[in-house]
Amino acid sequence: MDNRKIFLYDTTLRDGTQSEDVNFTVIDKLRIAERLIDFGIDCIEGGWPGSNPRDMEFFTKLKSANIDKSKISAFGSTRRAKKSCEDDEIIQALLEAEVPNITVFGKTWDLHVEEALKISLDENLDIIYDTIQYLKKKVDKVYYDAEHFFDGYMANPEYALKTLKTARDAGADCVVLCETNGGTMPDKVAEIVTVVKNTLGDYPFGIHTHNDCEMAVANSVMAVINGASHVQGTINGYGERCGNANLCSIIPNLQLKYGYNCISQENLAKLKSLSYFLDEIGNLKHFTHRPYVGNSAFAHKGGVHVSAILKNSKTYEHIEPELVGNTRRVLLSDLSGKSNLIYKAKEFGLDIDSKSETVQNVLNQLKDLENRGFQYEGAEASFELLIRNAMDEKTPEFFDIISYRVIDEKNKALSVAPMAEATVKVDVRGEIEHVVATGNGPVNALDNAMRKALVRFYPALKTMELVDYKVRILSHNGTMATTRVLILSKDETSSWSTVGVAENIIDASYQALLDSIIYKLLKDNNK
Amino acid sequence: MDNRKIFLYDTTLRDGTQSEDVNFTVIDKLRIAERLIDFGIDCIEGGWPGSNPRDMEFFTKLKSANIDKSKISAFGSTRRAKKSCEDDEIIQALLEAEVPNITVFGKTWDLHVEEALKISLDENLDIIYDTIQYLKKKVDKVYYDAEHFFDGYMANPEYALKTLKTARDAGADCVVLCETNGGTMPDKVAEIVTVVKNTLGDYPFGIHTHNDCEMAVANSVMAVINGASHVQGTINGYGERCGNANLCSIIPNLQLKYGYNCISQENLAKLKSLSYFLDEIGNLKHFTHRPYVGNSAFAHKGGVHVSAILKNSKTYEHIEPELVGNTRRVLLSDLSGKSNLIYKAKEFGLDIDSKSETVQNVLNQLKDLENRGFQYEGAEASFELLIRNAMDEKTPEFFDIISYRVIDEKNKALSVAPMAEATVKVDVRGEIEHVVATGNGPVNALDNAMRKALVRFYPALKTMELVDYKVRILSHNGTMATTRVLILSKDETSSWSTVGVAENIIDASYQALLDSIIYKLLKDNNK
Repeated sequence: MDNRKIFLYDTTLRDGTQSEDVNFTVIDKLRIAERLIDFGIDCIEGGWPGSNPRDMEFFTKLKSANIDKSKISAFGSTRRAKKSCEDDEIIQALLEAEVPNITVFGKTWDLHVEEALKISLDENLDIIYDTIQYLKKKVDKVYYDAEHFFDGYMANPEYALKTLKTARDAGADCVVLCETNGGTMPDKVAEIVTVVKNTLGDYPFGIHTHNDCEMAVANSVMAVINGASHVQGTINGYGERCGNANLCSIIPNLQLKYGYNCISQENLAKLKSLSYFLDEIGNLKHFTHRPYVGNSAFAHKGGVHVSAILKNSKTYEHIEPELVGNTRRVLLSDLSGKSNLIYKAKEFGLDIDSKSETVQNVLNQLKDLENRGFQYEGAEASFELLIRNAMDEKTPEFFDIISYRVIDEKNKALSVAPMAEATVKVDVRGEIEHVVATGNGPVNALDNAMRKALVRFYPALKTMELVDYKVRILSHNGTMATTRVLILSKDETSSWSTVGVAENIIDASYQALLDSIIYKLLKDNNK
Repeated sequence: MDNRKIFLYDTTLRDGTQSEDVNFTVIDKLRIAERLIDFGIDCIEGGWPGSNPRDMEFFTKLKSANIDKSKISAFGSTRRAKKSCEDDEIIQALLEAEVPNITVFGKTWDLHVEEALKISLDENLDIIYDTIQYLKKKVDKVYYDAEHFFDGYMANPEYALKTLKTARDAGADCVVLCETNGGTMPDKVAEIVTVVKNTLGDYPFGIHTHNDCEMAVANSVMAVINGASHVQGTINGYGERCGNANLCSIIPNLQLKYGYNCISQENLAKLKSLSYFLDEIGNLKHFTHRPYVGNSAFAHKGGVHVSAILKNSKTYEHIEPELVGNTRRVLLSDLSGKSNLIYKAKEFGLDIDSKSETVQNVLNQLKDLENRGFQYEGAEASFELLIRNAMDEKTPEFFDIISYRVIDEKNKALSVAPMAEATVKVDVRGEIEHVVATGNGPVNALDNAMRKALVRFYPALKTMELVDYKVRILSHNGTMATTRVLILSKDETSSWSTVGVAENIIDASYQALLDSIIYKLLKDNNK
């Protein structure tokens, strides 16, 4: 077994954001970088400084962030034809990023050199050489991305290889073969990579592929088994067109199927959670069938498979799901529903009898609620309240909200920004409190008013705050869609999440806010 | 170039429906079968008669349907150990389907024979032989699926090959190597397929793979280039766990990349529409990044790419999108440059000078807006308004909204559902209109009120309706998050999309609604 160390290079924050539906804020990007380092990625391409304000801001904010800069790379092109490196703002912006790694891409394909750059083939080699040599004096590591390497090789193999040798001779730490258009088949990749290996000898090279033919993962793996030791990709395969190579599949394939050394076994078990984290941050729908990390990746639907699985998991599972942090799901609704419920109840410290009527009641209620759009996977606090309410152990009646009203108003004569105001009337053990509050939107105003009304009776609510608020439209019928709101709240000791579903977004938010406050009071009460 | 005919075998209606989220009615299944035949699939696995009522009904309804039965296959297992074929209801149900093709699966892996079937290895060979010989006398074609072939081969190569030879000798028209668990890597598939090829000689064999390692397409292609001539898969890769091999990628790969003969060039151009049809029938969200057929498969975002594409499409596209019925799309974003903008302006019928100040102004404005969370990729109508406003050609002032107010109210004493009411005051060329409307949520109420106020002046607004409404929370800070709203509207002739961004969700929705109405009026005005 070949147990070479494979260098993992993540470009989620740069090439991944070329995807139509991926948009990260600067704060998102910093959080992601931190998480990727924790996961064990060797180098993280942070962006292209100078190409847009967001990437620029990322590198600026990075300077004061508590993030290991040795793992971050800035990406850009080789210098322009008519400029020297010193005069080229693109090159200078790379240095201004102040990170110890720089990745530059250059042209490999003779067609591009002559048609796009409109320079001679030799001039292009000079550009590559110059840029790398210049940068290598300034920073620790320089990586060279050979754009269109495979198409370039097929058009003019000698020239394509020459660009790689030029980059190597100029001092690049690694040259990366980019399958930019995603059109090359794995047998061809294997063949060309073998030529590169023989040409470069003992010098390290990498692979960067795109998924236009559903071959990005296969092509990356074929490159590694034929000599590449550096793999570029993105989490969940985010990227332009059909996406980049998906590191969430490549890493377990290399490590579990071939025995290469990518990351620690302990970190590999964080793979599913990393994949979910990225979807959450990007507010993208989780693709349930994703290999290794999808919620359906180890789900078995009734019949032959299930009884076999229960006897011997090897029969219908290619790996133990726990290796990548996933779990087996048996979609025998009744059985799995019940055991899942009891398992959950135990987690909440509730003693529930599997044969009791309560279990069946909760299951029925759950089915009905999920049919209406509720989802408890991201809202465990609401789920706990649901179980507690269904059991004898009733939740105390902390308060009763009699009415609320939210007003949003915009008046050209008065101001540009709209005004949001909420009133709430609440009954706490017979005492009526009626308050008004504003906010920078209707939900924020309602949140403020609810807590203002209750804080006199429950001062602990002061320590609670909302940290996340998500909205998902479930069925589409113009502005009459059903809305699901997920809220994440925290206090000094823990965080919890709640859910609300309604046609009216304000009402859905109200439900989730209500659950959140009740959960907080219950939690303090049970202490 | 190898231009062998590759036999296409579709199992969308059988293995595809094992997917957690795929559910077809019998009527759906008949429509799909018809469409697949029209597309040029050689054999369609209709279901497992006897395993469930729906599959049974499919074959019953098929008898009187106007569908070419010679293309349909019934699927089932080999006979049970203790029964003869005549006595086995599973085998008899296959014959009752009354289709001229039958596919049976049997055991290859010694572990399964001994642990699951609990019979001897020789007995299993008898079962395979018996079943195929029996069926071959009754129907035209019998296909044999060797379940777990690759795992079986790795455990006991001699026995695995023996099961294939048994099926061949019993008269099977083709034996199919099933990569059931989806855990085998493409180099291993190539190696094992080569052994099979050498063992079976000139006898036809097929490949059936699953996507658990994101290798289903690669494994299918590797099998074909090493000798397989029959490929099984599903449209869009539907299937249990991570799905089956995706025919929408396999077919164009085999045909366009290698030159194999799968279907006519004319039918290949129906590929995208076939993929959409299946998503529609299955009520599944279209996965926009799907290779070849996804809406993003030929979408270009980066400025560098776009200017190159405009010069020569080969530079960033691996095939002409039209070959598979897809089209090129140029996207707008903060990563984009001048060339994207000019390309778009041309699409809108605007003549824009690339050297003019307007272009730079729009680019600057765009960068600023996208930094604030605007995104124009899904909101081309808002983008067109932006460009038009930046150019000399001003948008006419159709109306001026002086104020709006939205009230959401819930009162325990009055009702369970909250009330949403909106008032709007508008100035249309000096005439003031002040109206009130309700809705089932604040945005719907505002939408109703805005149109109610304007319809007296612009009756064409009656023909316009909202078809989709999306909300995304951009940066997280509790309920104070920034909100982006995307709205899709339509009238009798076209549909258009607009965007709004604000801290306040009502205000974000208001902006998008406003753009939508203005765009509609402008569109009608320009006719």
